[in-house]
Amino acid sequence: GFGGIQLIRQLKHAKLQVVLLDRHNYHTFQPLLYQVATAGLEPDSISGPLRKIFDTHKNFYFRITTVDAIDPGKNQVHTSIGSIEYDYLVVACGTKTNYFGNEKIRQLAFPMKQVPQALNLRSHILQNFEKAVNTRDPKKRNRLTSFVIVGGGPTGVEVAGAMGELKRHVLPNDYPELNLKLMRIYLIEGQSRLLGGMSGYAAQKAKRYLENRFDVEVKLNCLVQDFDGEEVTLNNGVKIPTETLIWAAGVKGGIIDGLGNETIENSRFVVDRFQKIKGYSNVYAIGDVAKMSTENFPNGHPQLAPVAMQQGKLLGKNLYRMLKGKAMKPFEYFDKGSMATVGRNRAVVDIPPKFRFGGFVAWFIWMFVHLVFLVSFRQKIVVVFNWVWNYFTYDRGTRLIIRPFNYGKKIEGKEAVLDEVS
Amino acid sequence: GFGGIQLIRQLKHAKLQVVLLDRHNYHTFQPLLYQVATAGLEPDSISGPLRKIFDTHKNFYFRITTVDAIDPGKNQVHTSIGSIEYDYLVVACGTKTNYFGNEKIRQLAFPMKQVPQALNLRSHILQNFEKAVNTRDPKKRNRLTSFVIVGGGPTGVEVAGAMGELKRHVLPNDYPELNLKLMRIYLIEGQSRLLGGMSGYAAQKAKRYLENRFDVEVKLNCLVQDFDGEEVTLNNGVKIPTETLIWAAGVKGGIIDGLGNETIENSRFVVDRFQKIKGYSNVYAIGDVAKMSTENFPNGHPQLAPVAMQQGKLLGKNLYRMLKGKAMKPFEYFDKGSMATVGRNRAVVDIPPKFRFGGFVAWFIWMFVHLVFLVSFRQKIVVVFNWVWNYFTYDRGTRLIIRPFNYGKKIEGKEAVLDEVS
Repeated sequence: GFGGIQLIRQLKHAKLQVVLLDRHNYHTFQPLLYQVATAGLEPDSISGPLRKIFDTHKNFYFRITTVDAIDPGKNQVHTSIGSIEYDYLVVACGTKTNYFGNEKIRQLAFPMKQVPQALNLRSHILQNFEKAVNTRDPKKRNRLTSFVIVGGGPTGVEVAGAMGELKRHVLPNDYPELNLKLMRIYLIEGQSRLLGGMSGYAAQKAKRYLENRFDVEVKLNCLVQDFDGEEVTLNNGVKIPTETLIWAAGVKGGIIDGLGNETIENSRFVVDRFQKIKGYSNVYAIGDVAKMSTENFPNGHPQLAPVAMQQGKLLGKNLYRMLKGKAMKPFEYFDKGSMATVGRNRAVVDIPPKFRFGGFVAWFIWMFVHLVFLVSFRQKIVVVFNWVWNYFTYDRGTRLIIRPFNYGKKIEGKEAVLDEVS
Repeated sequence: GFGGIQLIRQLKHAKLQVVLLDRHNYHTFQPLLYQVATAGLEPDSISGPLRKIFDTHKNFYFRITTVDAIDPGKNQVHTSIGSIEYDYLVVACGTKTNYFGNEKIRQLAFPMKQVPQALNLRSHILQNFEKAVNTRDPKKRNRLTSFVIVGGGPTGVEVAGAMGELKRHVLPNDYPELNLKLMRIYLIEGQSRLLGGMSGYAAQKAKRYLENRFDVEVKLNCLVQDFDGEEVTLNNGVKIPTETLIWAAGVKGGIIDGLGNETIENSRFVVDRFQKIKGYSNVYAIGDVAKMSTENFPNGHPQLAPVAMQQGKLLGKNLYRMLKGKAMKPFEYFDKGSMATVGRNRAVVDIPPKFRFGGFVAWFIWMFVHLVFLVSFRQKIVVVFNWVWNYFTYDRGTRLIIRPFNYGKKIEGKEAVLDEVS
């Protein structure tokens, strides 16, 4: 992710063999993943091949694999492609979706962490509308065209806003047969406000935008208790008929086994100011999976891209210093602010210490900042084109239902039959 | 496909209820599908939502479904979403992949007819290289980096050329650890020449380009007899170690049951000069699935997009005439020529009666013609951008391995568990 990329960039000229292990062959720009899920962008807009990012690094090696465990005694990681030795190990696994132990929700809800999940959600949303035009049962049609988004953080807010845009601007042209006023979008949040990491001002603005401009029904102080694929039950007893539960309610650190329980707090690795994991001298953690307590952040830093990027960058520089026998510099987070977009023309921005604003200007700044941080120049062009196109045409060019279930073949050792329909 | 779209365009102002049934919610521009399979384009470049194409047609209805059978006695089609009545029925199902009864090949080979298949092939090719850097067994590495393409028609030639470009220009940057000179690309054709539908001049040029510029090993007069997932056996006894058999060897008409065997010849519906299926007065067939014998084409027209488009257009006009009580006009194919690209800077073009050329100019014309025929303006822009980018950077922006097998959820009634790895 963000932290690992910054780290490797710093190590371009280091006399090290830099080995990157990842389960995907691409980096995902997660802040825009919700636009893939809502038919605004194709994956190549936000994902770039990792080998390409570092193709000028002569010391760079990449392996696509999952990591099962760390063996710090032998200085090895055990992976799906065998054991790999290390001199220095950096864990930058980020987070994974947290279902808080609810197995039913894990099986039936749609998470939003990875590109295949976003594509799956895109197809599901569009397929629901195709099914809705086929049913005469108003209850079923209601379930198909109701969408419950859980989690009032930036992802939840952005998905809800994007769904609202689909409802108002895109789907009515596609489905003149449907009364899209009956489409329902719910945003469920357990706390008494949205955007917990941002200012109260931003939270209120975002809620107002969602409700007034994007037809989203925001329900605060609510938890999802159950989902059976047709109905969501909230902890206050309210039942919402829906076939789609989008889960943006929580994450937990992508912990890897082997370092011992004493290194883990709240599913994050406890690190010192130099990113060193507690009790180890050559194992580091950066980004969302690292928990560094400082005066300003006694419970660890927020799990945000800027923290990961700053930690990755500093650790890269520190490893250089170490190789030269110099002392490492301790990490200090510089908070440049945070922002969330709500939808067309509307976003909220907090800049510390107390500069807060929303609306069109915030939306424009949101776009600009996201473009700057996209990894490659090609992605910037593709995203700008899509945004300009979508903005002026009120269209979404990628609303394709691409379901590959019939086409899996020799996947992971299993042989599936290709069934070419019709 | 092409025929259906042209037909519906003609019927925009007809006093008819126009119902389009398709298994996908998008139109696929098949001539560029091979670029999706070889990481040159994302699906949105060549696929556009069908509802969008006709969103200004007030008489247009779309249903996503498969069609099981036609019941001409009741004027009904039986589909996966129920039975639908018709006054006039037009069958425009095109073709499906023909494995000539070889069940093993059907299960293990990669066809190239649909977007999910092309995406699957893209991921497979890239995954093979990721596996190849992990093996020390030279035989296995050889199997992983050898690719056998069957069928010397335009699709086979174009895939082979695109693979050659990957070998020469793209993959060496990604895999400095591999000796890409050992990557093998085979093109197998049963006849004694490539591009059976084009001139001998084009066939020879294409073969020379493939062999000299794109490192493709062309094997003529060869049939594939067997494939076990690790080795292809040809009918002359030669065995080629490979894990990838790309099947572009043949198609058959997408026949639908119910009209009787006497209407079918060579898996195509026999139609008269007005596209009427033999023995029926209100059932038509157009495009690849229709077999119309004329003086110039005693065995039916070639299964090409221009034929389908011309037939769709004329049938649309003829239906108008019929509604006004006027006589229909018989179909006559106007052959504007044919072309195939081989790869970077090289293509071949035949223009009747006898104008034939190849090389850079042909390649430029090939690009221009394909851009003109792309359905939407958005697609034209996206494709131009990708082509220009890929041409000057020698890069392929979409080489992402996106394998959704773990993310299927509530698909087709089956509940699959989401397994978020690592």
